[in-house]
Amino acid sequence: MPRRPRQHSADTRIVALLTDFGCAGHHAGVLRGVILGINPAARIVDLSHGIAPGDIALGAWTLRWSWRHFPPGTVHLAVVDPGVGTARRALAAAAGGQFFVGPDNGLLSYALLDAGPARVAALPLPGATGKLSSTFHGRDLFAPAAARFSLGEPPLPFDGRVRDWVRLPEPAVLRAGPGRLEGEVIAIDHWGNLVTSLTSRDLAQERIGATAAVRVGRRVLRGIRRTYGEARPGAAVALINSSGHLEIAVNQGRAAAVLATGRGGKVRVSA
Amino acid sequence: MPRRPRQHSADTRIVALLTDFGCAGHHAGVLRGVILGINPAARIVDLSHGIAPGDIALGAWTLRWSWRHFPPGTVHLAVVDPGVGTARRALAAAAGGQFFVGPDNGLLSYALLDAGPARVAALPLPGATGKLSSTFHGRDLFAPAAARFSLGEPPLPFDGRVRDWVRLPEPAVLRAGPGRLEGEVIAIDHWGNLVTSLTSRDLAQERIGATAAVRVGRRVLRGIRRTYGEARPGAAVALINSSGHLEIAVNQGRAAAVLATGRGGKVRVSA
Amino acid sequence: MPRRPRQHSADTRIVALLTDFGCAGHHAGVLRGVILGINPAARIVDLSHGIAPGDIALGAWTLRWSWRHFPPGTVHLAVVDPGVGTARRALAAAAGGQFFVGPDNGLLSYALLDAGPARVAALPLPGATGKLSSTFHGRDLFAPAAARFSLGEPPLPFDGRVRDWVRLPEPAVLRAGPGRLEGEVIAIDHWGNLVTSLTSRDLAQERIGATAAVRVGRRVLRGIRRTYGEARPGAAVALINSSGHLEIAVNQGRAAAVLATGRGGKVRVSA
Repeated sequence: MPRRPRQHSADTRIVALLTDFGCAGHHAGVLRGVILGINPAARIVDLSHGIAPGDIALGAWTLRWSWRHFPPGTVHLAVVDPGVGTARRALAAAAGGQFFVGPDNGLLSYALLDAGPARVAALPLPGATGKLSSTFHGRDLFAPAAARFSLGEPPLPFDGRVRDWVRLPEPAVLRAGPGRLEGEVIAIDHWGNLVTSLTSRDLAQERIGATAAVRVGRRVLRGIRRTYGEARPGAAVALINSSGHLEIAVNQGRAAAVLATGRGGKVRVSA
Repeated sequence: MPRRPRQHSADTRIVALLTDFGCAGHHAGVLRGVILGINPAARIVDLSHGIAPGDIALGAWTLRWSWRHFPPGTVHLAVVDPGVGTARRALAAAAGGQFFVGPDNGLLSYALLDAGPARVAALPLPGATGKLSSTFHGRDLFAPAAARFSLGEPPLPFDGRVRDWVRLPEPAVLRAGPGRLEGEVIAIDHWGNLVTSLTSRDLAQERIGATAAVRVGRRVLRGIRRTYGEARPGAAVALINSSGHLEIAVNQGRAAAVLATGRGGKVRVSA
Repeated sequence: MPRRPRQHSADTRIVALLTDFGCAGHHAGVLRGVILGINPAARIVDLSHGIAPGDIALGAWTLRWSWRHFPPGTVHLAVVDPGVGTARRALAAAAGGQFFVGPDNGLLSYALLDAGPARVAALPLPGATGKLSSTFHGRDLFAPAAARFSLGEPPLPFDGRVRDWVRLPEPAVLRAGPGRLEGEVIAIDHWGNLVTSLTSRDLAQERIGATAAVRVGRRVLRGIRRTYGEARPGAAVALINSSGHLEIAVNQGRAAAVLATGRGGKVRVSA
C-alpha cells in the first residue's frame, strides 16, 4: 500500500550544500551551524564539498547534474567563490520550484538555464554594519540567506530583478561534418572516468548511434555500450552516463590514467 | 532523571549510506536528494563514502563492523557496484531488526551472516520503463528502495525469497599447529593500522593470550597489549581493536608504512 | 515579515562532530549510529572529520574558530585522542551556553577558554563492565555522553568539578620592539593559505595597520589587504581572515607551496 510522501512544511525545507571547502577545515561545519542557528528545523544535506578550490565550472556542472534530483522547495547553497570580497554580486534565485543562493560568477548558471524561467535578485550586502568578513561570505552572507529561504521567507524583495547574471559558456560541441562531432572532456569523476561535453541529444541529432567510433587521445573505441561490464577488465569503453553525457571508462580501471587524458582533452565521434 | 529515547515513527527511519562514491562528485548528494524526495522525514546519515572504488570486500567489512551500532529499523543503503547494469541482482533484505539494500555481489553478505536469519528478496528492475540508467543504480534503484523501506513500506513482496545471494568467503584463518594461527591483513585503517583477519575469538580458541608472539613482515612483536600508548612513540604494538580483530599499530605512526605491509600481508601468531 | 527561529526542544539538540577519523572508515558513521540509538531526534552535523590523525592542536583551533557559530545548546563531540585507553581523563563541559565532550588532552581547551566560565567534569569510565573498548572511546564513551547531553540530561553530576583540565599553550606572539610582532603559522587551510598566530587584536595593540610590512620566509609583503582579489593572480597577499587571524594567501594559488612555508614557520610584522 503505497503512501504519499509528506509535504514539507515551510520551515523544514532542505538546504543542500555545494562548496569547494573540503571536509577537513572548519568552513563547511560553520555553514551548518549558521543555518541551524537561523532555522533549527532545516534539513542540511551535502551535495559536495569536494569541488576543486576555485573551480567554478566544475561546481556548475555538479549542480546541473544534481538539482533536479532534489525535491521541490530545496534551497541550494553553492559557494565556490574565488572573488569573495570583490565587487562580484551575490545572487538569490528561484527556478524550477527550487531556490539557489551563491556568488554571481557562473556557478549557478547551468542549473538556472536548465531549470527554466529564473527569477534572480542580488543579495544586499550587510556592508557597513561590519558583520561581513571579506573572505567568508559563505558564513556571513550566503548561509544566512539560504537559511531564511528555508524558513519560507524570501531573503530579499524579488522586484529588484537581475537579468545580466553571469552565464558560463556551454562547452564547445563542434560539428565536424555530417555524422561527426567533436567535444571535450569536462570532468574526471571519482572513478577516473572521462565525462565529455557530448550528450546523448547531440549524438541523436547527428544520427550517431551504437556503432559509432569514439576517438580519444590516440585510441579509437568502436561502439557505444550500455555498461562498464561490456568491456573486459582493463579495456576502455564508451557509454552514455547517468547524466546523459558520453563518457569514456575503463572497466575496473581509471580511464584518465590509462588514456592519459585530462579535462579539456578532445573527443571525436563519428557515426 | 533519565529519559527514554523516543520511538522512531514509521516514517522517520534512519537511512545509513555506504558507498564508494567519494565526497567530491555529485553522486552521494544525489542519493540524498532522491531519498528526501520520497521520504522528506528520512534521517540520512553517512556510514562512509570512502570505500576504495569497486572494493566490495572493504565495503562488506565496513558494514560488518558498523550495522550493530545503529538503532533497530535502520535502513542500510550500500552501493559498491562495479557490475552495475549487468545481470547481477539487486537485493533488499531484513535481518537483525534492520534493513539492507544493495547489489548482490557480496557487499551485504558479512552483515547478513552476522545479523542472523535474513529474509532476502530481489528488487525488481524498472527495466523497460526507461527510468533505469545503466550506470547509476544507486540513484535509480537502490535509493528509491531504501527510501520506501524508511517509510515503513516493504519495497517488494517478501514471498519471492532469494536464498543463493552471493556470500563473500570469510578470510583465511589457518591453524598452523597447536597455539599457532596464521591470518592476513584485511584492511588498513585511517591511521595506517593493520587490521587482521584474526579475531579475539580465534585467539581464545587456540588459547593464545597476552604473551603471544605476533609476526608480521620480518618483525616479531612480543605480547598483545590493550592500548596504543603501551608502545613507546614510533614502536609497533599488537592489540585487539574495537571490532574484535587483532590489529598491529605504531604508536603515533603509521604501521602500514613502518612495517611495509599492505592488505593480504601474512600475520602469524603463536602462544 | 521576519520570523523568529524556533526554540530547540530539549531532545532535538544539535550534536556537532569533530574528529580525526577521516571519512573513509566506519568510525565516524558508527558515532552517528550510537548517538541516534540514544537520541533518535538528535540533529547530527559534521564540523570536521579531517583533522590530521592525532593533531590535537589543529583540532583545538578548529573548535575555537567554529563553536560560536553554532546555536545555544549545541553539543560539541570532539575526538582527537591519541592517548585513548591510557590514564587521560574524559571530559564533559558546559560553557558559553553550549556543551563540550572529549578527551582531556587540550582538544577542548581553546573553545573553553574563549567561551568563558566553564563547568568541567570528568566522565566516569564504564570500566569493569567490559563495555569500554581500549581503542574507540569515541564510540563507547564520548558519543553516548554527547547523546545524553542532547537529550537534556546531564551526563554526570556536575558537583565533581575538574579544575586542572589540560590547557594547550597559546601560540607565541613575540613583541620584537615597538610596532614589531613575531608570530608563526598555526594552520594551512584547504586553499593552502597560511593562517598565523597573530590576530587583528594583536596588531591593533601594536598600532600595526594597513601599511604594515609582513615578512614570511624570504618574502616581504607590503600592506595588509582586505580581499584575495587585491593581489594579481599568483601574487601573495596578507589579510585578516574570517577568524580574525593574519593570513597569507596567494590569489588563485597555494601560499604554502608558493612561499614554501609550513606550520611553525615564522611570520614577522612591522608597522
